[in-house]
Amino acid sequence: MLSKEVRSELLQIVGDKYFMDTENELYAYSYDSTPLFQSMPDAVVMPGSTEEIAAILKIANARRIPIVPRGSGTNLCGGTVPVEGGIVMNTNRLNKIREIDQDNLTASFGPGVITADLHAAVERLGLFYPPDPGSMRISTMGGNVAECAGGMRGLKYGVTKDYIMGLELVLPTGEILHVGGKNAKDVAGYDLTKLMVGSEGTLAVVSNITAKLLPLPETKRTMVAYYRSLTDAARTVQRVIAAKIIPATMEFLDQATMKVVEDFARIGLPCDMQAMLLIEQDGMEAQVERDIMRIEEIAYQEGAVEVRLAQTTDEANKLMAARRAALSALSRVKPTTILEDATVPRAHLAEMTEQVNVIAKKYNVQICTFGHAGDGNLHPTCMTDERDKEEIHRVEKAFEEIFHAAIKLGGTITGEHGVGIAKAGYLELKVGEAGIDLMKRIKAAFDPNGIMNPGKIFAKSDRRRVVVSKCECGHDETQHKHDDSKQSV
Amino acid sequence: MLSKEVRSELLQIVGDKYFMDTENELYAYSYDSTPLFQSMPDAVVMPGSTEEIAAILKIANARRIPIVPRGSGTNLCGGTVPVEGGIVMNTNRLNKIREIDQDNLTASFGPGVITADLHAAVERLGLFYPPDPGSMRISTMGGNVAECAGGMRGLKYGVTKDYIMGLELVLPTGEILHVGGKNAKDVAGYDLTKLMVGSEGTLAVVSNITAKLLPLPETKRTMVAYYRSLTDAARTVQRVIAAKIIPATMEFLDQATMKVVEDFARIGLPCDMQAMLLIEQDGMEAQVERDIMRIEEIAYQEGAVEVRLAQTTDEANKLMAARRAALSALSRVKPTTILEDATVPRAHLAEMTEQVNVIAKKYNVQICTFGHAGDGNLHPTCMTDERDKEEIHRVEKAFEEIFHAAIKLGGTITGEHGVGIAKAGYLELKVGEAGIDLMKRIKAAFDPNGIMNPGKIFAKSDRRRVVVSKCECGHDETQHKHDDSKQSV
Repeated sequence: MLSKEVRSELLQIVGDKYFMDTENELYAYSYDSTPLFQSMPDAVVMPGSTEEIAAILKIANARRIPIVPRGSGTNLCGGTVPVEGGIVMNTNRLNKIREIDQDNLTASFGPGVITADLHAAVERLGLFYPPDPGSMRISTMGGNVAECAGGMRGLKYGVTKDYIMGLELVLPTGEILHVGGKNAKDVAGYDLTKLMVGSEGTLAVVSNITAKLLPLPETKRTMVAYYRSLTDAARTVQRVIAAKIIPATMEFLDQATMKVVEDFARIGLPCDMQAMLLIEQDGMEAQVERDIMRIEEIAYQEGAVEVRLAQTTDEANKLMAARRAALSALSRVKPTTILEDATVPRAHLAEMTEQVNVIAKKYNVQICTFGHAGDGNLHPTCMTDERDKEEIHRVEKAFEEIFHAAIKLGGTITGEHGVGIAKAGYLELKVGEAGIDLMKRIKAAFDPNGIMNPGKIFAKSDRRRVVVSKCECGHDETQHKHDDSKQSV
Repeated sequence: MLSKEVRSELLQIVGDKYFMDTENELYAYSYDSTPLFQSMPDAVVMPGSTEEIAAILKIANARRIPIVPRGSGTNLCGGTVPVEGGIVMNTNRLNKIREIDQDNLTASFGPGVITADLHAAVERLGLFYPPDPGSMRISTMGGNVAECAGGMRGLKYGVTKDYIMGLELVLPTGEILHVGGKNAKDVAGYDLTKLMVGSEGTLAVVSNITAKLLPLPETKRTMVAYYRSLTDAARTVQRVIAAKIIPATMEFLDQATMKVVEDFARIGLPCDMQAMLLIEQDGMEAQVERDIMRIEEIAYQEGAVEVRLAQTTDEANKLMAARRAALSALSRVKPTTILEDATVPRAHLAEMTEQVNVIAKKYNVQICTFGHAGDGNLHPTCMTDERDKEEIHRVEKAFEEIFHAAIKLGGTITGEHGVGIAKAGYLELKVGEAGIDLMKRIKAAFDPNGIMNPGKIFAKSDRRRVVVSKCECGHDETQHKHDDSKQSV
């Protein structure tokens, strides 16, 4: 509970309209897209300017009140759940695209801008902002920066970090920093810009963003290849890269995922196949054509049963939409969908996928796998029922083993979703105790009082799983309330 | 002076052959490629393994002895001058390329690998490591990582930071961390890899490096365009980018630079011209041809007097070599060459170049400008004589104004050379007092005892200039010793 004094100070800063603390309002900010993590904040504020952010932070810092910066809350790691209460700071009002600089190929905008709106705005000018996380129609750029969002174009174009050139940020003290900028080269001191990207709201609040843009590729082609064997599909990915072709997108769906996607989207996927690859190449027409032909050749050489080139934009869009629907489709199958994010160096894709299957069999659990094959970024997804405690226990053991397998292959515990609270228990596997200690000291350099999104990244419990629960009362799953107590898991 | 005990401990770790502390040996490590900065170390060690690095750091950390990590010392910011004495740690023995992974498109190697050797090794396999700093035939990859080296291919391909995926590093405590790796996507905690790149040896010692590789472009074409006006050249750069063409290289030389380069290299530059652009495009042949034709068209539209396409690889190489010789050529003209590194968003190139000329006139000093036009990364270079105190004073005033001008245009004090000791006095201009304070706290998170390359990045004096002094005794300028005292400037 905030004191009367703090409440009135916050009200004075943002005004009546942008301060919320009724039970219903707090409820709406007690969860994000990571169901089963829920905790009530004490207040929600929606600052309208950098100065308001600074004023709020000063108050919170002086009184050691947690601040949870938040956009649309589409993250999958519990990253915006206010697990220690405090103030949720929704930055969605800062949603202006201030500038698209066609000479320097940069865009400057507030953290509240929706990712897809940025795409549309720059594409109208023939420019391109590549990162395209699954949630891009809802997610904000502030959230993308906080989580270092990835997407389907990571293979060729990289992730959010590769495009963020400058940030305005507000430290817990209320100090406003401008880091980076529009310079293609800049080595003036430590790179605070890249450090902020992926810091999950635990260091400072981002109040403005400058991103790098590219020329929009002239053309693109989309193709699918179907396989009787998972390994053939994975080997195709490897062979394409080894042939020195870097496609814009190389997505992978296994049979189980194909089946549920087909059931959901009805686009005629051949569900007797064991796997499919969805491949997109973009660029200059002659190059795209040549690459696509060579990829087709390699796919057949590696055992593809059928390779299909999308003949129209509409057909291409349908294929991409089907892939984008994979998680939604999977979450319809059983009451509880557990989604993970293990990532390996791309050459280990086949091995990792096989190990997921072996582990699933060993523990007798149902795991579908889809994801960004070109990045080695898998989304092994378990369909289960949280009410079956014995099965859930087996699921947990299975995922534990999947994580260890990824790490053994030189992989990581999270490729693009972030650590948040859902993966905090696994971080040590990747970075070791010394790595965690160092990261904690870096956090303290920004946030000595520990007010910035406390309880995230660094484990307080051994809770290690993202559990997507299917709501039984007819609500949309992200609206479902599981528990009223703080920090329910 | 090291105590007998420390000396014997170090000797035990690296052995007789790799411990140096005779007067001559210390002398050789008292300077780097940034003349006029010199200071004697107390010892030089050349560890042969990560474990030896750890053992040395433990001793130094316990006794608060400065550690200056160093490769070939080709930096231009005084970054490896042991300004507080202590131990210079030369990591050049760690010069193995451990692996070139053709499936994951990564290379893994020690910090002592020479940049050009890495280029050659990966290019033999049809792969590509783009960053190509001017010193690449001598510089080590450890040094490139420490300074976040740039080069001529920054416009299209980015800088060192964009290619470093993973590092093994040793903290002052001797703890060995593995950060990042071969994963195309990895958001497990704060990005310590990118934080280390460009940290100038002030945080930890890098003992192994994993870099991203690209497929080697199939072909490249080189062209030059000559201009009667600086502004026309700068406008060409802007128009090419606005036409959504991103050349691999867009280098700029003004008339004064052309003259001395021609005098040095005799390649037939038309020295009645005011400026030239050296442009290279690479990629698939059809695309390269189309881009080069369009660039030629734009160059003529913007007032180029002549555009010449290199007809042979040999001709192309000669043109590029001439550009690479610019600094050497300039430093022959007068006893003292003062080289700066102001960088602006690329659209401000014309404005910045004009301001450099106005400022040079105002202070009656001779400044040539060349550099990476596509990146807005200028190297305004002053030819003067350090014995003329009155002129040096005007030169200092001129550069002071150039830096302020760059910052006003949204630029930065250093694009690719690093802060070191030479630019420490300017850092606040770019990042502000709060930025410096935050960076100091981050340093303390890695290095609480302040043993890592002390005196760098953060100003202790207001010394702000890189002065390249021409040796009068016939030695190569980088071998010249200016002063025996510690921290001479």
